[in-house]
Amino acid sequence: MSTSLRDRMVNYVKNLQVEIVSALEKFEPSTKFQKKSWLRPGGGGGDSCVLSNGKIFEKAGVNISVVDGDLPEFLVQKFKSTSSKFFATGISLVLHPHSPKVPTVHANFRYFEQPDRTWFGGGADLTPYAVSENDFKHFHSTLKKACDPFGADLYPKYKKECDEYFRIQHRDESRGIGGIFFDYLEKDLESKFDFVQSCGNSFLPAYIPIVERNQNLKFSEREKKFQLLRRGRYVEFNLVYDRGTLFGLQTKGNIESILMSLPPVVNFDYSADMETSEDEKKLSNWFKTPREWV
Amino acid sequence: MSTSLRDRMVNYVKNLQVEIVSALEKFEPSTKFQKKSWLRPGGGGGDSCVLSNGKIFEKAGVNISVVDGDLPEFLVQKFKSTSSKFFATGISLVLHPHSPKVPTVHANFRYFEQPDRTWFGGGADLTPYAVSENDFKHFHSTLKKACDPFGADLYPKYKKECDEYFRIQHRDESRGIGGIFFDYLEKDLESKFDFVQSCGNSFLPAYIPIVERNQNLKFSEREKKFQLLRRGRYVEFNLVYDRGTLFGLQTKGNIESILMSLPPVVNFDYSADMETSEDEKKLSNWFKTPREWV
Repeated sequence: MSTSLRDRMVNYVKNLQVEIVSALEKFEPSTKFQKKSWLRPGGGGGDSCVLSNGKIFEKAGVNISVVDGDLPEFLVQKFKSTSSKFFATGISLVLHPHSPKVPTVHANFRYFEQPDRTWFGGGADLTPYAVSENDFKHFHSTLKKACDPFGADLYPKYKKECDEYFRIQHRDESRGIGGIFFDYLEKDLESKFDFVQSCGNSFLPAYIPIVERNQNLKFSEREKKFQLLRRGRYVEFNLVYDRGTLFGLQTKGNIESILMSLPPVVNFDYSADMETSEDEKKLSNWFKTPREWV
Repeated sequence: MSTSLRDRMVNYVKNLQVEIVSALEKFEPSTKFQKKSWLRPGGGGGDSCVLSNGKIFEKAGVNISVVDGDLPEFLVQKFKSTSSKFFATGISLVLHPHSPKVPTVHANFRYFEQPDRTWFGGGADLTPYAVSENDFKHFHSTLKKACDPFGADLYPKYKKECDEYFRIQHRDESRGIGGIFFDYLEKDLESKFDFVQSCGNSFLPAYIPIVERNQNLKFSEREKKFQLLRRGRYVEFNLVYDRGTLFGLQTKGNIESILMSLPPVVNFDYSADMETSEDEKKLSNWFKTPREWV
């Protein structure tokens, strides 16, 4: 008897968590991830790995969850489902480096099952605070390479969906320079599972070289300030629009695990000038009008 | 011919803005409020007065708006109205002092008119970062005095509504120690206008003595840290739950005026311990279980 898709996905996210945590700890000579397991009152739970105040990472969370139970009624309606029963598992990570020269990154890969429907979702996206075009190209082309074996149309499609999803609508600008985003992949699930693994496995090769190349660069006080202000926009997106965050808060998920995505130190200035240099102007343009990176 | 209620409310909020700005500037020897007028694309506009990095106030916004036009369809439905036409005016203020010994305060008084319905709303609430029971009593009893001439039942009712409204639901705790909150006051509008003015006029006497008494108190590094962490909760409430903030973002209001409510510097730590002292424990208890102050 073959193992269920559900169980294989749980196994995959657990192993990916270990792999990513161990890759990140190589940058941290004296700080380890804190591991905490939590139970969800409605069913299931999760394992959070969070590192605070490391050498490179100011706050880094690599969390997995395996939850099940009943969805609140408004979510049953939103998912157009006939049942409130659900099972969900996934890995979600957000890394906030100290240095504004090293971009923030987010990735999430998830599996959602209801009696009448099963789907995969996920993606990865980069939020830089300094111009580094080659790194942005590297990030996107690594994700493209992960998508291409499953169809040449996938990367362009999911790149566009990412630009649309991570939009701070009230500012008509993006959170960062995007990546890929997909949701409700429900046909041909075995092949979709292969696709999700291909994307998940591309996270470290997409991001780690960017950390290596930029971790020792000097930065100015203003570059740090720009990061703190852009982190404010990150908070605006996550608390006002992010479906994962709001789903977690509405389904009584583990608050600390959900909100580990929020940057550790943030500035909200009134009418802040976000274009005080050529680099800031370039970034602001790319946030306003997403461009192609490959 | 008597002047319309709408015009008298506009006049009232304009005068109240001038009065409050001038009272706050007395604390600021070398920093003035920046005044900025903005136009709303759909109709009307506003005047923002914001002070940044003063001696006492790290960020203080006292804004008024006078807007009109068409509500988006989902708000017409929410308000159970037969028309999308609306007119709204109000004053909204949020003051974030540098010192954790001086509480953050918020107040808002508003008038909303549709062809088939007109109502007032408003309130004032305090968010302290240090224990100062006499000040909390003073704040509440000043608001109570403003309510009492209009009915002895009003303060207890609006105090309770305030506790319910400013609830960070996902944490099951309040943003601060409350005050009063009322909405949809639509009967006997002339008397309601008197009530709103009584509350509006009580703002300065409720808050200013608290600034005077606490502005020069020394504080520890941990007390400052606690403030930065509690400010994170303030952001969580405003971006996830606050109706005014979400209404503004959804109706294409002036982003900088709406988000002036966010604290200037904020910390979001993972699993932060919020009860490291007797004072923090006291505050956390009051946030969890609102108590009576008069």
